[in-house]
Amino acid sequence: MAEAVITMDGWCTLHDTRTFDWSSWKMTSEQERSEAIAEFEQLMTKWEQTEEEKKGSQSIYKVVGNKADLLFIFLRPSMDELEEIKREINKSKIGDYLIPGYSYVSIVEMTMHNPMDEGKDRVLDPRVEARLKPILPRWEHACFYPMARRRNEEANWFEIDKAERTRLLYDHGMTGRKYAGKVKEIITGSIGLDEWEWGVTLFAHDPLQFKKIVYEMRFDEVTTKYAEFGDFIIGNYLAKEAVATYFAL
Amino acid sequence: MAEAVITMDGWCTLHDTRTFDWSSWKMTSEQERSEAIAEFEQLMTKWEQTEEEKKGSQSIYKVVGNKADLLFIFLRPSMDELEEIKREINKSKIGDYLIPGYSYVSIVEMTMHNPMDEGKDRVLDPRVEARLKPILPRWEHACFYPMARRRNEEANWFEIDKAERTRLLYDHGMTGRKYAGKVKEIITGSIGLDEWEWGVTLFAHDPLQFKKIVYEMRFDEVTTKYAEFGDFIIGNYLAKEAVATYFAL
Amino acid sequence: MAEAVITMDGWCTLHDTRTFDWSSWKMTSEQERSEAIAEFEQLMTKWEQTEEEKKGSQSIYKVVGNKADLLFIFLRPSMDELEEIKREINKSKIGDYLIPGYSYVSIVEMTMHNPMDEGKDRVLDPRVEARLKPILPRWEHACFYPMARRRNEEANWFEIDKAERTRLLYDHGMTGRKYAGKVKEIITGSIGLDEWEWGVTLFAHDPLQFKKIVYEMRFDEVTTKYAEFGDFIIGNYLAKEAVATYFAL
Amino acid sequence: MAEAVITMDGWCTLHDTRTFDWSSWKMTSEQERSEAIAEFEQLMTKWEQTEEEKKGSQSIYKVVGNKADLLFIFLRPSMDELEEIKREINKSKIGDYLIPGYSYVSIVEMTMHNPMDEGKDRVLDPRVEARLKPILPRWEHACFYPMARRRNEEANWFEIDKAERTRLLYDHGMTGRKYAGKVKEIITGSIGLDEWEWGVTLFAHDPLQFKKIVYEMRFDEVTTKYAEFGDFIIGNYLAKEAVATYFAL
Amino acid sequence: MAEAVITMDGWCTLHDTRTFDWSSWKMTSEQERSEAIAEFEQLMTKWEQTEEEKKGSQSIYKVVGNKADLLFIFLRPSMDELEEIKREINKSKIGDYLIPGYSYVSIVEMTMHNPMDEGKDRVLDPRVEARLKPILPRWEHACFYPMARRRNEEANWFEIDKAERTRLLYDHGMTGRKYAGKVKEIITGSIGLDEWEWGVTLFAHDPLQFKKIVYEMRFDEVTTKYAEFGDFIIGNYLAKEAVATYFAL
Repeated sequence: MAEAVITMDGWCTLHDTRTFDWSSWKMTSEQERSEAIAEFEQLMTKWEQTEEEKKGSQSIYKVVGNKADLLFIFLRPSMDELEEIKREINKSKIGDYLIPGYSYVSIVEMTMHNPMDEGKDRVLDPRVEARLKPILPRWEHACFYPMARRRNEEANWFEIDKAERTRLLYDHGMTGRKYAGKVKEIITGSIGLDEWEWGVTLFAHDPLQFKKIVYEMRFDEVTTKYAEFGDFIIGNYLAKEAVATYFAL
Repeated sequence: MAEAVITMDGWCTLHDTRTFDWSSWKMTSEQERSEAIAEFEQLMTKWEQTEEEKKGSQSIYKVVGNKADLLFIFLRPSMDELEEIKREINKSKIGDYLIPGYSYVSIVEMTMHNPMDEGKDRVLDPRVEARLKPILPRWEHACFYPMARRRNEEANWFEIDKAERTRLLYDHGMTGRKYAGKVKEIITGSIGLDEWEWGVTLFAHDPLQFKKIVYEMRFDEVTTKYAEFGDFIIGNYLAKEAVATYFAL
Repeated sequence: MAEAVITMDGWCTLHDTRTFDWSSWKMTSEQERSEAIAEFEQLMTKWEQTEEEKKGSQSIYKVVGNKADLLFIFLRPSMDELEEIKREINKSKIGDYLIPGYSYVSIVEMTMHNPMDEGKDRVLDPRVEARLKPILPRWEHACFYPMARRRNEEANWFEIDKAERTRLLYDHGMTGRKYAGKVKEIITGSIGLDEWEWGVTLFAHDPLQFKKIVYEMRFDEVTTKYAEFGDFIIGNYLAKEAVATYFAL
Repeated sequence: MAEAVITMDGWCTLHDTRTFDWSSWKMTSEQERSEAIAEFEQLMTKWEQTEEEKKGSQSIYKVVGNKADLLFIFLRPSMDELEEIKREINKSKIGDYLIPGYSYVSIVEMTMHNPMDEGKDRVLDPRVEARLKPILPRWEHACFYPMARRRNEEANWFEIDKAERTRLLYDHGMTGRKYAGKVKEIITGSIGLDEWEWGVTLFAHDPLQFKKIVYEMRFDEVTTKYAEFGDFIIGNYLAKEAVATYFAL
Repeated sequence: MAEAVITMDGWCTLHDTRTFDWSSWKMTSEQERSEAIAEFEQLMTKWEQTEEEKKGSQSIYKVVGNKADLLFIFLRPSMDELEEIKREINKSKIGDYLIPGYSYVSIVEMTMHNPMDEGKDRVLDPRVEARLKPILPRWEHACFYPMARRRNEEANWFEIDKAERTRLLYDHGMTGRKYAGKVKEIITGSIGLDEWEWGVTLFAHDPLQFKKIVYEMRFDEVTTKYAEFGDFIIGNYLAKEAVATYFAL
């Protein structure tokens, strides 16, 4: 039996996609639409205050293609807050037009696979704190996808030695480092919480970099042999200042 | 042919998820909403009386993410009662807004795999009675997922010796014991009743423990080689006292 | 090439699940509801007459869980009658509230696998007639699931010898006999008619017996190596006398 | 690399399933219903004229079970006509009640696998013309299913020799010949056009023959080792004379 | 570890399918319909201007079968423009009837697998520019399908040598060349952007050529061993001049 990995865990995370019901929105009066947008901007302001107080973070993305229209990403210290935020959106005026779609529940995760980290007291390291409770970068584009590790006869991630797992992930990390400054990444774990095992959230100024990094990593041994991927979704950052324009008819 | 397992079976169980139709709820008058909530609280009171009489148990959870809004768990002596409860919810006023989603039908199950239990007369053991007809703990969080055992050429759970199955499950149980006081578990069997073969319902004060226990168990040989998992759903406990607030606009 | 099996075939069978639209039903006037129920009871009476004339059989079950609310099982000499019955339900008043769900089209089937049956003239045997044109037992619970046999490199049901298939099914039948008096079974074949290859419909006084028999059979070699299962659905018998109560608000 | 097969290709084919919206239909006035039926009968008359001019063929089937209510099969020389027919149905009055379901786009196909056909000039053969541009038989029942050939390590249809493919298909054809007079078959190819690789449309006077032929063929080596099947749908022929009765309330 | 491929990347691409809501369209007044069509034609005119300025390209296709009614293909320099176009359609009058369906997000891609291209400075080659920023041909028919390369134990595309990958793709290209003048092809990559790994968009005067080329290529070693395919969708070109007729009742 392989030695189980030890993780450090941070904020609870909700990826929440919504399709906007434009037909119903158009049948709503201009006054009601204005009120709905204003109320939504107030919600965003409240969320920003939470972020300023270092009690969470969030971003909204305009999704490309028909999988959804908006992707919300929320990080909070507790699952209670994530459920309350969902409910607050649904109870709000604009919530009537934000039809819930695919969502993903997970917790920010760091593993001890990097051999250079062995023996260090990471809990006290401020960089660790920053990674476990990350403030989402306001980069122009985001990409989300869930993944899992294979448990097949010929390739069973959970059966191989911890040292081998560390080596494979180290090589994988080396590929990632080539994209420093171009791609930021947050890993969240969903084992016991949602489908798949991990969620990968990427940020970039140029969405071509999502294609380049994921493509190059597909040749990494850890991916080639052990990775299974769910669906990918990409979106463009929606700033609070652009919300009124987004919903304007 | 491997020797079939002998099970002890308890209460029939229904996991019933619902999405709340907030848009229609908002279009309902305040008086109708109050009546609907009051009627629902009376239903809950009736269910609580059943529990006090040791004729069943139940809990409601606020689901995180968009898979559902509420997860009901009902345990009753008969399948008839489970169908009647579903119908009673659907006929109630608030039932119009509780759109049925994924559900899971099973029966509380104990197996004889623990070698220390061999030869004991478990039927008369009050602890066995308590496990077969369990009162759900009012812990803050619940997690549900269905699972099955593989029947592949290279890993066929139903072909291996009973002694080997017992050993694998014993090791698995040892991992579980590390979480005593942190995670409670109810196993229900759904072979012949629903998709998958078993349902696992976990309870915790801290939802991070769901991730930790399922993650660590993924390295157990019985999981690594033989387990297939369905989707995971987690929720936060909804007390009767909090129902009015939950539905308040 | 393995010798193809020879089947005896009986009545055409339709398993038809429906979700009841309680929200719309509540918006219907009491008089319209009464008329709809009365018309539905007349339909049931007509179906019962068909059964008395030995020209078919049927039963209705209240489904546990959210997969459906009602499961209709119809057996008739022809596929034309099965389509007409579906249409008659849809055209009826209550049909507006019976939203069609999963269905399964098959034909009652007996195979010649039992070695004790070789050489007998089964066509003239009245017990064969009774099994090919069965009157459904009015037992309290029913269970339905579809299944198929594997066609893999390592386990290909359609490639192994007829004698081996007979042996495997004979052992399987021995497990079934232990449940005589507790579980009744009807096998229908759907090759060329619907997804999967066979449908299994079980009847029991105690639904725990569904779990026990399917669980024990999972250790039979024919299941362990060759069986694939679809979804399971269980329900509680709905007598005509209970119909008005079922739909009462 | 195995030698690619050479096909002869005929009419473009659309299998188009529809669910009838009986609830909305009942809310329509009798006059509107009469007009909708009359307009639909005129459409059918126009289609029949196309068939009389040998410029296409079509049939409508009443589907058994809840997968659909009606199955339309259209054959035409061009994909343009198939799209226009779909649009014409959708624009018609009755189109408002014919909710589109599963469809399948393909082209009638003959392959050169029969060794007796080698070297013949089949293009000039009138029987070939009749098979590539077939007039659908007005037999009482139809069955449709899509299929594909496996491309696995252990069984890869597209890697084996053309001679071996020819032998396997010849044996398969021999099974089919046993059903001459009982079952008619049209093979259409959908590689590059739709999911799966081929569509099989069967016609019979007795739907039991669908079960018998597909069951027996499942023991053919080409099926046992190389075939994957999609879903099966069966229906009963709907003549123009029976249309008014079909839709009558 | 195999050497990762180097790609050249061009315009961002959106394949966007829509089902037209004919029932609601018929309930709209003739004046509103005229206005909606006129507004849509203006949108098309704006898109055409973008194409004339070499800042993008697009085409609309009438889909055969029920998967969708219309397929839009948009190519633009940025993902921002693709999201804005989707939103512009949804905000337009006719957008109320264009129900979003399956979509696919990707980027035009060229790989360096052709051995004859090694060492050339392709960036300066105007033919490369034309392929990375392609103006869609106005051929009568289009076909779209997504695909991926296998990562199995016995066939793992991302593990084999770059030279072997080049050889396999070269042979594949040779099959494609036989269809010069009959089929045009645009390859887009979706790794990191959407499900599957590549999208293939074909254009032809005769849709039979879609079947012929994909069928013949299925025998290519690279397909036989390494390819997995998603669903195929085909459509007939819709010129701006034909839009009014398309929507006319």
